[in-house]
Amino acid sequence: MNYKMTSYILGHIAVLEAVLLCIPFVLSIIYGEDTLLGFGIAILALVLIGVPFSLKKPEKRDFRAREGFVIVALSWILLSLFGSLPFFISGYIPNFIDSLFETISGFTTTGGTILSDIQSLPKSLLFWRSLTQWVGGMGVLVFIIAIIPKSDAKIIHLFRAESPGPQVGKLVSKLKFTARILYGIYIGLTLSQVIFLLFGGMSLFDSFVHALGTAGTGGFSSMNGSISAYNNAYIDIVITVYMFLFAISFNIYYLILIGSIKQALKSEELRTFVGIIFISSLIITISLAVNRVYSTLGETIRHSIFHTVSMASTTAYTTADYNSWPLLAQTVLFLLMFIGACAGSTGGGLKVSRAIILIKTGLNEIRKTVSPRSVLNIKFDGKTLDPAVSNGVLAYFSIYMFIFAISVLLISISSIGGLNFITNISAVNSSINNIGSGFGNIGHTGNYAFYNAFCKMVLAFDMLVGRLEILPMLLIFNPRVWKKKF
Amino acid sequence: MNYKMTSYILGHIAVLEAVLLCIPFVLSIIYGEDTLLGFGIAILALVLIGVPFSLKKPEKRDFRAREGFVIVALSWILLSLFGSLPFFISGYIPNFIDSLFETISGFTTTGGTILSDIQSLPKSLLFWRSLTQWVGGMGVLVFIIAIIPKSDAKIIHLFRAESPGPQVGKLVSKLKFTARILYGIYIGLTLSQVIFLLFGGMSLFDSFVHALGTAGTGGFSSMNGSISAYNNAYIDIVITVYMFLFAISFNIYYLILIGSIKQALKSEELRTFVGIIFISSLIITISLAVNRVYSTLGETIRHSIFHTVSMASTTAYTTADYNSWPLLAQTVLFLLMFIGACAGSTGGGLKVSRAIILIKTGLNEIRKTVSPRSVLNIKFDGKTLDPAVSNGVLAYFSIYMFIFAISVLLISISSIGGLNFITNISAVNSSINNIGSGFGNIGHTGNYAFYNAFCKMVLAFDMLVGRLEILPMLLIFNPRVWKKKF
Repeated sequence: MNYKMTSYILGHIAVLEAVLLCIPFVLSIIYGEDTLLGFGIAILALVLIGVPFSLKKPEKRDFRAREGFVIVALSWILLSLFGSLPFFISGYIPNFIDSLFETISGFTTTGGTILSDIQSLPKSLLFWRSLTQWVGGMGVLVFIIAIIPKSDAKIIHLFRAESPGPQVGKLVSKLKFTARILYGIYIGLTLSQVIFLLFGGMSLFDSFVHALGTAGTGGFSSMNGSISAYNNAYIDIVITVYMFLFAISFNIYYLILIGSIKQALKSEELRTFVGIIFISSLIITISLAVNRVYSTLGETIRHSIFHTVSMASTTAYTTADYNSWPLLAQTVLFLLMFIGACAGSTGGGLKVSRAIILIKTGLNEIRKTVSPRSVLNIKFDGKTLDPAVSNGVLAYFSIYMFIFAISVLLISISSIGGLNFITNISAVNSSINNIGSGFGNIGHTGNYAFYNAFCKMVLAFDMLVGRLEILPMLLIFNPRVWKKKF
Repeated sequence: MNYKMTSYILGHIAVLEAVLLCIPFVLSIIYGEDTLLGFGIAILALVLIGVPFSLKKPEKRDFRAREGFVIVALSWILLSLFGSLPFFISGYIPNFIDSLFETISGFTTTGGTILSDIQSLPKSLLFWRSLTQWVGGMGVLVFIIAIIPKSDAKIIHLFRAESPGPQVGKLVSKLKFTARILYGIYIGLTLSQVIFLLFGGMSLFDSFVHALGTAGTGGFSSMNGSISAYNNAYIDIVITVYMFLFAISFNIYYLILIGSIKQALKSEELRTFVGIIFISSLIITISLAVNRVYSTLGETIRHSIFHTVSMASTTAYTTADYNSWPLLAQTVLFLLMFIGACAGSTGGGLKVSRAIILIKTGLNEIRKTVSPRSVLNIKFDGKTLDPAVSNGVLAYFSIYMFIFAISVLLISISSIGGLNFITNISAVNSSINNIGSGFGNIGHTGNYAFYNAFCKMVLAFDMLVGRLEILPMLLIFNPRVWKKKF
C-alpha cells in the first residue's frame, strides 16, 4: 500500500468536498438558515485535513490496480463521514448514524431516507442532499481526474475502480479528457433538465433539487410525496425522459457527439434496456388497466411508464403508491430493480449488460453440454466476448447474491414488530442496487427510520458495495491490504 | 434423436411404474378401498403401452449425452402423467391438473400438496403419494439401470442426467453395480427408519409413509399436521436423524461400507453441511429462546434442530408453525432452503457443493483482480477444481436465478386476493428447490390449493426443473432435439 499516494489523493478528495460544501454554505447565508455552523465546521475540517495532504506530492507516485480499489473505497468513506457533518451538527438529524446513512444514501445515489418529514429540512441541507447524489452519480474520482492539471498513467486504476459496469474503457486516449467529456455531458444534461422543469412551473430551487436527483439516478426530492406532490403530467414526463437519459451509457452520448449516431444506436445494451422498459411498461399498464386502478388510460400509462423508468434507472422517484398496485405490476417493478440500469450510466443495479452476459453465458454452457466438442463463443455487441469478462460477471453475480443473503440475515437479527420478510428483502435490494424505495414499509412515502443503528449500517455498507461494485468494499477488510508491501 | 431407443427406455419406465403401482393396488384390496379401479386402470394403461415398446429392442442402441437428458425428461413426464391417474380416476382429486401437481410434487420429492385434508385420503393413495417420493429421490432411471440384465456403455448418460450435483461419478467400474449399491443403501436405510419409527409407537402404515417421505427428502405425511400430529420427541429425533442421513451424499455410505471411514469424513461438502446445520440450529435456538417462543429449552432445541435439518435437507416435515417464529429464525430457514442438501443425496436445492464452488469461484475472481498475473486455482475436496466445472456451476446458478425470476413473474399474473410477494417467492423457492413448505400461505399446514391451474403448472414445471437440474426440462423445448438427426 502506497500510503503517501493514498493520503495525497484523499487530500484532494477532502478539498473537493470542501469546495462542494461551499454551495450549500452560500445558500445557507442567502436563505438565512441555521445550518451555517454545520457547513462551516465541515468545510473547515476538510480544509485543515485535506490541504496539507494534497500539497505533499509523493515521490513514488506509482500504485497498482488493487491499491486503486482501496483508494476509491477510502475516498467514499471519507466523503460520507465529512458529508454527514452538516446534518449532524445543525441538529436536523441529531443521530450521527442517521446522518451517515442519509449521506451514504446520497453519495451512492440510493436515495433511501431516514427522514419522515423531508419538507421540514432547511433548503441548504436539502440542496446538499441532492448535490451528493449528483456527485456520486458520475463519481468523485472521475471529477478529480477531470480537474487535476497533470495526470499519471496509473490514475486509470481509480477510474476503473469507480466506474460501474463489467467493461470500463476510455472514450479518448487521454483519461483526463475522457473524464472532462463525461462531466461535460453530465453538466449539460443536468442543466437542460433544470430548464425543462422551470418551464413546468417548478421553482428554481426545486428544479435544481430534482435535476440533481435525476442526474445521479438518486431520487432525493424536496417534497414528502416525491414527484406526486406536483401532480403535473408535464413534470412527470420531463422526469421520466431524463431518468431514462441518465440510465443509459454515457458512451452513447459521446458517440452521438462525434457523429456516430448509427453506432450509438447499435448498442446491444441500449436496445435491450429499451426493450425491457417497453415490455415492462406494457405489462404494468395492462395490469393497472385490467384492475381499474386509475380512472383514465392516460393516467394509467403515465404512472406505469414513470415507475418503470424510475425503478429500472434505480432513481425511485414516485408519483403513486405502487405498493397498492396489483401483484403483477409490483413483481415487474421488483425484478426491474434487480437488473438496474446500463453500465457506464449513473444508474445502479446489476446492470443490463451483466444480465445479458449472465443469460448468454448460461445458455452457452447448456449448449456446451449438448454439443461438448464444439467451441462456442458468446457474442456481445457483435464482438466475441472475452471468457475472462463472462467469468468475471458470473463470479460477480455469485458474490453479489451471497452478500445479499448475508445482509438479509443480518438485518433480520434486530427485527422489530411489524417488520417482515418483504420489507427486509426489499430494503437490501433497494440498498445494494442503489434504488431507495422498495416494498413493504419502505414504499412510496416510506422511510428507513424504523431500522435500528445496526441495520442502518448494514444497509449503508450494501449501498457502498452496490455503488462501487463489491470489490473496493471487500478489499478494505483484507489485512494484507494495509501492509506496506501490498 | 434415436426414437427407437427412446421408446425402448420409456417402455421400461412404464412397466416399472406399473409394477410400483401394484403395491398400492394390493393395499387397496387389503383395506377394501374404492381406489381399486383407479390403480387398475393406471396399471393396465402402463402395461398396454409399456410392454410392446420395452420388448422391441432397437438395433442402434447408441445415443448421445444430449439424448440422455431428453430421455430423462420424458421419463419423468411419463411417470407423472400416469402416476396421477389413481388420484384422478378415484375421484379423490377430481381436477386433473391438481392430481398432476400432486404427483409431480411427489416424484420430484418436493412434497407440496394441493390437499387441505390429507387424512381424508384412502390409505392406498397416501401410500402411493409417499412411494412416488421414495422412487423420485434416488431416481427411476437409476432403478432401471440397477435391474436391467445387460447394460450398454451409453446408459451412463441417463445416470448422469438424472443424478443431481455438479459432478456425478460411478462408485465402481460397472454402472449397474453402482446403481445396485446405491439402491441397496437406500433400501437398507429406509427399512431401518421404519423399524425406529415402529419403536416410537407409530403404526406400521404411518411408519412406512414417513420413512418413504424422509428417504426421498420429500416430506409427504399421512397427517394434516405433518410430524406435529404425533407431538413425540422420540419420533422427532428419529426423523431429524434420518432427514440428515438422506441429505448427505450416498458416496459417503459407500466409503464407509468399504472401510474408508477416514476418507468419508474428509468430504468438504459433508463438513460444510454439518457446519451449516450446526450454526443455523444455534441461531434459530437463540432466536427462539430470546423471544421465549417455547416454555422449555428442550422444546426450543428440538424444534429448531428439526426445522433446520428439515429445510436444509429440503424435506420440509414440520413440527411447529415456523411462520410465527421470529423473523431471524424464518430468514435462516429461508436461506437454508436455497442452499439445500448435498450433491449425490436425495435432497434438493442448489446443493451445498455448488454453494461452496460459487463462493470459492467468486472469491477467486476477486483475488485475480487483486493479483492479475498470478494463476489461482480453486481447491475442492483437496483437489484442484476443473475450471469447466466451476464455470458450469456459475452458469447453472445464473440460469437457475433467471428461471426463478420468470416463474415469480408468471405466477404473479394470476394472483388472487390475499396473495402476496412472499407467498409467490416462497412458492417458487419451494418448488424449484423441491422443498414443499414455505412462507406466507404455504406454511406449516398450508397448501397450494388456492393457486389456479396456470400457476400450478408453472410450479410443477419448476419442480421438474429443480429435480432434474434444469437442462433436461429446457432441452425438450428445443425444436432441434426432435429432429431425427439430433
